[in-house]
Amino acid sequence: MSKVIAIMSMSLDGYVSDPNDGVAEVFDWYLTSGDVEIQTGGSDPMTFMVSEPSAEHLRDLTSGLGAMLTGRRTFEVAQGWGGNHAWGPAFVLVHQIPAGWPRPNSTVQFVTDGIESAVKQAKAAAAGKSVGVHGADTIQQCLNAGLLDEIQVDLAAVLLGSGVRLFDHLAGTPAVLGNPTVTPGVGVTHLRYPVRKT
Amino acid sequence: MSKVIAIMSMSLDGYVSDPNDGVAEVFDWYLTSGDVEIQTGGSDPMTFMVSEPSAEHLRDLTSGLGAMLTGRRTFEVAQGWGGNHAWGPAFVLVHQIPAGWPRPNSTVQFVTDGIESAVKQAKAAAAGKSVGVHGADTIQQCLNAGLLDEIQVDLAAVLLGSGVRLFDHLAGTPAVLGNPTVTPGVGVTHLRYPVRKT
Repeated sequence: MSKVIAIMSMSLDGYVSDPNDGVAEVFDWYLTSGDVEIQTGGSDPMTFMVSEPSAEHLRDLTSGLGAMLTGRRTFEVAQGWGGNHAWGPAFVLVHQIPAGWPRPNSTVQFVTDGIESAVKQAKAAAAGKSVGVHGADTIQQCLNAGLLDEIQVDLAAVLLGSGVRLFDHLAGTPAVLGNPTVTPGVGVTHLRYPVRKT
Repeated sequence: MSKVIAIMSMSLDGYVSDPNDGVAEVFDWYLTSGDVEIQTGGSDPMTFMVSEPSAEHLRDLTSGLGAMLTGRRTFEVAQGWGGNHAWGPAFVLVHQIPAGWPRPNSTVQFVTDGIESAVKQAKAAAAGKSVGVHGADTIQQCLNAGLLDEIQVDLAAVLLGSGVRLFDHLAGTPAVLGNPTVTPGVGVTHLRYPVRKT
């Protein structure tokens, strides 16, 4: 069954990035978590190896995805994923389609008519597989509209102190979630919660 | 070795209580987490049974404690624990000693000269065992003063949306924590992070 799954890394104090909102910052925590081993000297100039539990969790998660849904900020910080998101065709929720897009040979598409339409289009593209949702604002929109089936958080062993919060401006709270699947990595803890639909 | 361990339950979105700051609210989440079975009809009018992993985690944690340290708000909400905190002598950080206290046959003591003194006195009372710190404000004070050795969070499967945050007004961030010990309960996930002293 096609599920809509929020996928995000978060610090123990609830932030997805520092105040400058860099995806690089998120990856920086991940690097400092101890979960990642940086290998140099091979055929690649630099290879990142995550811990075996994290690798298995990531394979399990991403192999079930058929499409991605993000907001404009994530799209821009990631520089449009070079035209193709690694986890499937990406739907980007925007007010206006960015200049120069859509591009030929790109699976990145834009949705201008709101979150419900974006989820519907992404589900159709996923063809029975799941839709991954990335970006705090887009995840909040999905959650508030009752469109989310799961919340997958990589809880990083760091306190950021300030930044962009994953859970902010929530409607319909308190909201009890289901029993999570817990995968301890090194430093990072992968938590996968079912969202109980009301 | 005597450690200073923050002990707190927290919602996935980072709150330790709702805006009304009731300890009962924290316990309410715990009840809804699925980790607790309420048994009636026995010799006690009502017995709360937590899941076996949670029970083992709690036994392991509390058996290592020799004293508690809290703030005034926790003391008041808990109505002074009836004069004796279950986990050892309690030191309460206050500006003024509450009327009617200290009481005879009570192990609850008050500290008026700040967090460093409070930790020192609690450590002395703990006699080689660890000091548990409870209450968001007191935990933040310990963390900011570099007095904390571990952070133990019971991460509840609930989004509260608003309330009192566990990690707020932090100094010295970003702060990387050590690799946590992870104990999945039912709904709740027990996370025990070493604090890396700088």
